[in-house]
Amino acid sequence: MQKQPIYPFAALVGQENMKLALKANLVNPSIGGVLIRGEKGTAKSTAVRALAELLPEQEVVTGCAYGCNPHDPKTMCQDCLTRLEKGEKLEADTRRVRVVELPVGATEDRLLGTLDLETALKEGQTRFQPGILAAANRQLLYVDEVNLLDDHLVDALLDAAAMGVNTVEREAMSVSHPARFTLVGTMNPEEGELRPQLTDRFGLCVQVRGLTDPNSRQKVIKLRLLYEKDPYEFSRSYEAEGEALTKELARARDLLPKVEYSQAIIDRVVAISLALEVDGHRGDLTMLKTAVTLAALEQRNQVELKDVDQAALLALPHRLRRRPLAEMEFDIADRLKRV
Amino acid sequence: MQKQPIYPFAALVGQENMKLALKANLVNPSIGGVLIRGEKGTAKSTAVRALAELLPEQEVVTGCAYGCNPHDPKTMCQDCLTRLEKGEKLEADTRRVRVVELPVGATEDRLLGTLDLETALKEGQTRFQPGILAAANRQLLYVDEVNLLDDHLVDALLDAAAMGVNTVEREAMSVSHPARFTLVGTMNPEEGELRPQLTDRFGLCVQVRGLTDPNSRQKVIKLRLLYEKDPYEFSRSYEAEGEALTKELARARDLLPKVEYSQAIIDRVVAISLALEVDGHRGDLTMLKTAVTLAALEQRNQVELKDVDQAALLALPHRLRRRPLAEMEFDIADRLKRV
Amino acid sequence: MQKQPIYPFAALVGQENMKLALKANLVNPSIGGVLIRGEKGTAKSTAVRALAELLPEQEVVTGCAYGCNPHDPKTMCQDCLTRLEKGEKLEADTRRVRVVELPVGATEDRLLGTLDLETALKEGQTRFQPGILAAANRQLLYVDEVNLLDDHLVDALLDAAAMGVNTVEREAMSVSHPARFTLVGTMNPEEGELRPQLTDRFGLCVQVRGLTDPNSRQKVIKLRLLYEKDPYEFSRSYEAEGEALTKELARARDLLPKVEYSQAIIDRVVAISLALEVDGHRGDLTMLKTAVTLAALEQRNQVELKDVDQAALLALPHRLRRRPLAEMEFDIADRLKRV
Amino acid sequence: MQKQPIYPFAALVGQENMKLALKANLVNPSIGGVLIRGEKGTAKSTAVRALAELLPEQEVVTGCAYGCNPHDPKTMCQDCLTRLEKGEKLEADTRRVRVVELPVGATEDRLLGTLDLETALKEGQTRFQPGILAAANRQLLYVDEVNLLDDHLVDALLDAAAMGVNTVEREAMSVSHPARFTLVGTMNPEEGELRPQLTDRFGLCVQVRGLTDPNSRQKVIKLRLLYEKDPYEFSRSYEAEGEALTKELARARDLLPKVEYSQAIIDRVVAISLALEVDGHRGDLTMLKTAVTLAALEQRNQVELKDVDQAALLALPHRLRRRPLAEMEFDIADRLKRV
Amino acid sequence: MQKQPIYPFAALVGQENMKLALKANLVNPSIGGVLIRGEKGTAKSTAVRALAELLPEQEVVTGCAYGCNPHDPKTMCQDCLTRLEKGEKLEADTRRVRVVELPVGATEDRLLGTLDLETALKEGQTRFQPGILAAANRQLLYVDEVNLLDDHLVDALLDAAAMGVNTVEREAMSVSHPARFTLVGTMNPEEGELRPQLTDRFGLCVQVRGLTDPNSRQKVIKLRLLYEKDPYEFSRSYEAEGEALTKELARARDLLPKVEYSQAIIDRVVAISLALEVDGHRGDLTMLKTAVTLAALEQRNQVELKDVDQAALLALPHRLRRRPLAEMEFDIADRLKRV
Amino acid sequence: MQKQPIYPFAALVGQENMKLALKANLVNPSIGGVLIRGEKGTAKSTAVRALAELLPEQEVVTGCAYGCNPHDPKTMCQDCLTRLEKGEKLEADTRRVRVVELPVGATEDRLLGTLDLETALKEGQTRFQPGILAAANRQLLYVDEVNLLDDHLVDALLDAAAMGVNTVEREAMSVSHPARFTLVGTMNPEEGELRPQLTDRFGLCVQVRGLTDPNSRQKVIKLRLLYEKDPYEFSRSYEAEGEALTKELARARDLLPKVEYSQAIIDRVVAISLALEVDGHRGDLTMLKTAVTLAALEQRNQVELKDVDQAALLALPHRLRRRPLAEMEFDIADRLKRV
Repeated sequence: MQKQPIYPFAALVGQENMKLALKANLVNPSIGGVLIRGEKGTAKSTAVRALAELLPEQEVVTGCAYGCNPHDPKTMCQDCLTRLEKGEKLEADTRRVRVVELPVGATEDRLLGTLDLETALKEGQTRFQPGILAAANRQLLYVDEVNLLDDHLVDALLDAAAMGVNTVEREAMSVSHPARFTLVGTMNPEEGELRPQLTDRFGLCVQVRGLTDPNSRQKVIKLRLLYEKDPYEFSRSYEAEGEALTKELARARDLLPKVEYSQAIIDRVVAISLALEVDGHRGDLTMLKTAVTLAALEQRNQVELKDVDQAALLALPHRLRRRPLAEMEFDIADRLKRV
Repeated sequence: MQKQPIYPFAALVGQENMKLALKANLVNPSIGGVLIRGEKGTAKSTAVRALAELLPEQEVVTGCAYGCNPHDPKTMCQDCLTRLEKGEKLEADTRRVRVVELPVGATEDRLLGTLDLETALKEGQTRFQPGILAAANRQLLYVDEVNLLDDHLVDALLDAAAMGVNTVEREAMSVSHPARFTLVGTMNPEEGELRPQLTDRFGLCVQVRGLTDPNSRQKVIKLRLLYEKDPYEFSRSYEAEGEALTKELARARDLLPKVEYSQAIIDRVVAISLALEVDGHRGDLTMLKTAVTLAALEQRNQVELKDVDQAALLALPHRLRRRPLAEMEFDIADRLKRV
Repeated sequence: MQKQPIYPFAALVGQENMKLALKANLVNPSIGGVLIRGEKGTAKSTAVRALAELLPEQEVVTGCAYGCNPHDPKTMCQDCLTRLEKGEKLEADTRRVRVVELPVGATEDRLLGTLDLETALKEGQTRFQPGILAAANRQLLYVDEVNLLDDHLVDALLDAAAMGVNTVEREAMSVSHPARFTLVGTMNPEEGELRPQLTDRFGLCVQVRGLTDPNSRQKVIKLRLLYEKDPYEFSRSYEAEGEALTKELARARDLLPKVEYSQAIIDRVVAISLALEVDGHRGDLTMLKTAVTLAALEQRNQVELKDVDQAALLALPHRLRRRPLAEMEFDIADRLKRV
Repeated sequence: MQKQPIYPFAALVGQENMKLALKANLVNPSIGGVLIRGEKGTAKSTAVRALAELLPEQEVVTGCAYGCNPHDPKTMCQDCLTRLEKGEKLEADTRRVRVVELPVGATEDRLLGTLDLETALKEGQTRFQPGILAAANRQLLYVDEVNLLDDHLVDALLDAAAMGVNTVEREAMSVSHPARFTLVGTMNPEEGELRPQLTDRFGLCVQVRGLTDPNSRQKVIKLRLLYEKDPYEFSRSYEAEGEALTKELARARDLLPKVEYSQAIIDRVVAISLALEVDGHRGDLTMLKTAVTLAALEQRNQVELKDVDQAALLALPHRLRRRPLAEMEFDIADRLKRV
Repeated sequence: MQKQPIYPFAALVGQENMKLALKANLVNPSIGGVLIRGEKGTAKSTAVRALAELLPEQEVVTGCAYGCNPHDPKTMCQDCLTRLEKGEKLEADTRRVRVVELPVGATEDRLLGTLDLETALKEGQTRFQPGILAAANRQLLYVDEVNLLDDHLVDALLDAAAMGVNTVEREAMSVSHPARFTLVGTMNPEEGELRPQLTDRFGLCVQVRGLTDPNSRQKVIKLRLLYEKDPYEFSRSYEAEGEALTKELARARDLLPKVEYSQAIIDRVVAISLALEVDGHRGDLTMLKTAVTLAALEQRNQVELKDVDQAALLALPHRLRRRPLAEMEFDIADRLKRV
Repeated sequence: MQKQPIYPFAALVGQENMKLALKANLVNPSIGGVLIRGEKGTAKSTAVRALAELLPEQEVVTGCAYGCNPHDPKTMCQDCLTRLEKGEKLEADTRRVRVVELPVGATEDRLLGTLDLETALKEGQTRFQPGILAAANRQLLYVDEVNLLDDHLVDALLDAAAMGVNTVEREAMSVSHPARFTLVGTMNPEEGELRPQLTDRFGLCVQVRGLTDPNSRQKVIKLRLLYEKDPYEFSRSYEAEGEALTKELARARDLLPKVEYSQAIIDRVVAISLALEVDGHRGDLTMLKTAVTLAALEQRNQVELKDVDQAALLALPHRLRRRPLAEMEFDIADRLKRV
């Protein structure tokens, strides 16, 4: 059957924080993804899937299972690198960055890929069947209901996300391939919270709630009805807006490396982290990167204090300390004085 | 053995909300199904099964496992579409829409269908054994004791219900087919509640309780005894009423696209949602669609405020916020001002 | 070894409610079975097994695995029906209705029967190995310690009990056969309660306790000692009483269709249900049917009010509401007025 | 290696109730076994194993796996019965009754025996590998740490104990053999209690505690040291006492059928049960049988009231009501009056 | 690699109770082992392993898997016994008693040994692969972290410890071999307690804690550093002390059978048990045996009261009653008087 | 793909305790590893991985799977030793000590290595496939999220860590190889604590928290941004500092055996342990060794009191008593006096 057109990003009403967080990640993937928390029926998944049309194009090595960048040997898979080092010319295709979805109930094999030991032993070479992490390289990896994910999948995901590499081992054999992706997750906290270690892997975190402004709420209904009536026609009517948004993002991407910030900006970042008792240092960095990206999105090449404050709203909610750590006794220093 | 005639819908006493919710879905499947909650012995299953005789006829492509609509290429399965694109003429049969029941203890394979990998590899083409979701395409899917369903079946069901598509993956292969159905579930809350995410998938929700009016209660007994005495005769005696009901539904279906509503109607929908603190936006849309359908059922082409209020009773009970979400701290904005 | 004679029903001392409930079901199987709850050592199982000698004879199609009634095409299995439709004459045997016991630790396969897929594929026809539900068709199905039954067996049992049909599915194949039985269960509530949904499937429910009248208690001891001393002799000494009882039941069975009731009877049924806050409507119907049966047992063709009260004691204990249902909010109507 | 001589029953110090309960069962197996509860280190197992030397001889059919009694066709296994019915003469051996121990961690197969389906199908006859229940027929079955037994073994054990028959079913085949045994169990209640349903299967129940009389306590030590020093010599020194005890039991067995009791005795039995709120009726019967046996042990042919009181101490402790049953509402009668 | 020399027993600082308990068991294995409880880092394992060098020599039948004593037919395995009975001369080796360690995560097969059914059936004789219990016959069996042992291993261990025999059964076959060992266990109670039934199997029980005397504590550090620097040299420096200790133990072993005790001694044993409310009688016996052994260790042939008090500290801690047993009602006697 | 340069150790800001603990272990592996506890985002893993460049070189036997030291027969694997004993000359390579990481979700087989029984039986010699413990011999073994490790892996790890040997057993076969490693673990205590027994295996324990000094915090951000911009350039810019650090560590390693301490030092060690109620004696030893190492790191050959206090901060936090042990009663001595 034909896939029905996706609901356009430009037709999403309200939820500005969520939209900003998603756009910032499209402009600057080093921000590290978004976790969208929200009650049921708040179009979380719709928003993520709508990103598809805004994603930029990318060059990929033709036929490469990992979609390697033909111009960046440092991030290439072993195959592409070997070919390059042999002096071979890598042909390239252009394609859109994609939203790769982790299906409900995916197995660890499906996520990581599988290594066919038997054939490997017979034919003397590893036969690796790439999984979702391979497909997700240089893409967005979307995990719906991320709080319901099995623990062992979470572990595997965390590992790959931290390293940018996926390594599959079976007995004496081992295969590694690049797995750099922007992690986007959605969850309904009514169904349980996320492990702290996984939460921290998401650069940004936003909370969505039903709109409380009657006009916006009506707009949601009207647009949705129009979409349901004729998704093809509805999509077409937002095409121009979608293209404008795509261009805006492209402009921001171009401007990004040129954005500068003063010492006052970095002072503010640190002051906020200390005042809010943020866990660790990952938040500081993300706050700064996000502030820079927000400036770029507003077509400025100078970060302003308001960018930092805006960025704090996106980068810190999931990094505020939740419970006291000191179950072991580390205030030995004081007691030593009395010995 | 012969299947005994089903207890006729027209012979159901009371439980007007349940009957209305079911009828509304038969007229307008886009309402999205019904969840019927009720204590034991309140004829929940009887009512759902009784729908069978009220269901309209539909045209299906002859021999298609998914019962594709021969006139709608957008929702066709890949086979039908391919044949159509080759210029083949699709022959069609007419049949009644059916109530497809998810059997007690069905496995995931039975629900989703199975993919025969071995044959696929040998014969070079996928051999897909369709499951219940295939049979449920364009039908009612009835899940009794839906609150006792295994978690992984719930996940698979939610996924298909949200997408209108069922995708089965095994290793490198993947098969997709249309799976649009009206989900009807019954449950006895004494045996446990439903996951919030699943509850929200049901357009409407009604609660049934034993009747408290002695006359109605007596009527229930008398009719049931008559039915048990001779179900064939009993059925025959309700045939005329059943046909009238079928016609009423058909008339409402015809009228539905012509029903209109004023701005006051949509104002009321939003006012109710805000006043009742409904989760998300799905409730608004369902309320409006249901109101429109109720107007059609009453042979009006204009929605009235009372339709909205009636619809709210059906569309909102399972969408009222149940517990506070704010386990993370999102009121950073205030605290930023003090930094 | 020889099976020792069963302790005679007529030699059971006291426990009048239990005996009445069992007798009522033998006269009128549509009452729907009995659940016997009682502390250890109260002869629950003994009573059920003692029913064997009181059971009427029935005609069954010779050789039919389901013991089909040769005179009722509506309840026949597919084989018998096919033969009948071909104009074949169905030979019949006469046998006693039996107490079919669900063995401790029976598997689902044993309960439902198994479908031999391989042979089916080879020989082109389904090979079905009937299970306990097949044997139980038109019989009493006795489940000892029913509260300890595995959940999946309970599900399968409920399903068959509700439908009167057992359906076994394996992949693309499916076999159905009639499975109408009177369900009799015993349980010691010290070892845990029953799922409400299962409780409700039992038409009647009685509680047995140790006798508190010294004379009866002595009688229990004396009779039991006599039985243990020589079960053969003991059995013989109760033969006449057993036959009388069998005749009494036969007479009641004959009278049953002729028993009538006034409007006052049905008023009383409903009044009791409403006053006692009985769940659902199944209790009303069972109360009425039981009252009718009690009249027949007393050789009256007119139901009296005392029959209803007596029936209430048997039909309602397990149907009184146990805990409040309203976990969701269904009183939206009130709140709507304030919007 | 040689099995070391068992510690002699006659050398056990104190614990008179335990010894009496065990002796009563050896005289009158219809009492139904003993459950010995006691803290660690109270020689519970030692006592049970010491019974071995006191057990009477029995005649068994030569070669029969169930040790059938050649003179009692009613309790014979199918093989012996068939041979008898063919007019064959059953040869017999004389052997001692044995203490059959259920080994730690025995599987269900080991307990029940196994049915070799394949051979059965090939050779056209059932090949049954008898298990512990076969070996236990007409013997003592000893279960140490009975409170730690797996639930499914408990079920199987209860079933066999109640019926005196063990039935093994596999698919369409079924084998039954006699399994009448005296069940003796020991347990340390520190490690958990027993299921009520299983407790009730034991005719008698005694509690053992460490002796509190210094002299007895010293005697325990001295005898044990003597035994450990030279178990062979120690055993020999108790041989005469053991033989006397064996004879005493034999005399009691002979006298048992001749023991009589007056109405006063049976009055007392019932009065005690009612006063102590004993569950069910099994306790009454056991109390009476035990009283009769105690009289026989004292070489009297008339039961006295003190026998009943003594018997109550052994037969009732595990049958006193432990917790209120009335979780369902059975006092409908009262409420009916108000309708 | 070379096994590094074990830390010498003589170099252990403090922990006198632990050392005494271990030494007493080496002198008199009938004491029944030691359970050492202690916080982490208290050299529990080191002490047990250090025993190796103090163990006496023993004569074993050459080639026997169970290390049978060539001079004691009563404790021989079946093979040795058969050979002896055939008049064969059993050759013997002399070896040291060993510390056999139960490895972390050992399986039940590894502990008990395995029975190769297939070969057995083919070759007509049992092929038994002995396990750890075979190796432990006539040795010390050391279980580290005994409180973390799997329940089924505990059961198997208890069974063998109680019987001095290990019996392995598979279907119709069964192998038994002697398994008499001194059980030594260590545990950190921070990680959970032991089952009472297992605790009681240990003759003695000691608790070790970090030393609180600064001088001893310093000595621990200094010796440990010396050992780590050059374990070979360190070992050599304690050789003489080790030999002296070995001789001391040998002398005590020789003296042991000659040690006598007066009635006052046995009075004291019983008085202590009664005063401290010790569970069962095993403690009394162990206390007396330990007192005798302590006298022997002090080269006396007369037990003194102080020996008993010292023995109580080792034999009773794990036998004090922990919680009330009387969950059933055994005070029926009183109530009977009122009937 | 190319592995991106690791973040340099010298570029880590603050966290002095963690850095000191790691450096001390590189200088003196007998300290026994470090456990790093800290909230998310505190560069725990980064620090451990950064050690790689500071690790000294070591000589290893060419081709040896365990990287044996060619000059130390006492720690050699069996192969190397056999070759040496045959008079063979062992060729050697020089390589850096490595950080061996235990991968997420490693199996027990992967950790311990596997023993190929079949081939072993056929070819008559053991075929051992070494695992991670083999690779870790003479290296750092790094376990991230050590608190989430499966229990059976923890057991295996503890066992090897305590013995310096890894033994793999399968049925009758057994392979041992040296496995001496420095264990480094990181954990976020928000996700659960560690078993006490495992905690104690780590010589040192440090807690890391986000920096609270604004300047340091800014430095973290700036350096991290520089690193992310061009990790290659960033790495190069720290090369000199890294080499200086490596030399500093080498100098400390050389000085270590010459460092001396007075009696006052050892007095202080013991005084601290007693005052702080440290569990066991392992802490004392580690404190002293660490103090010695700290002196060496400061290029002194004399330990000072401040070294001990500094060492206490690293060696004791995880060894303070956490909960009372005395669940059994060991104060029998007092009670004996009253007997």
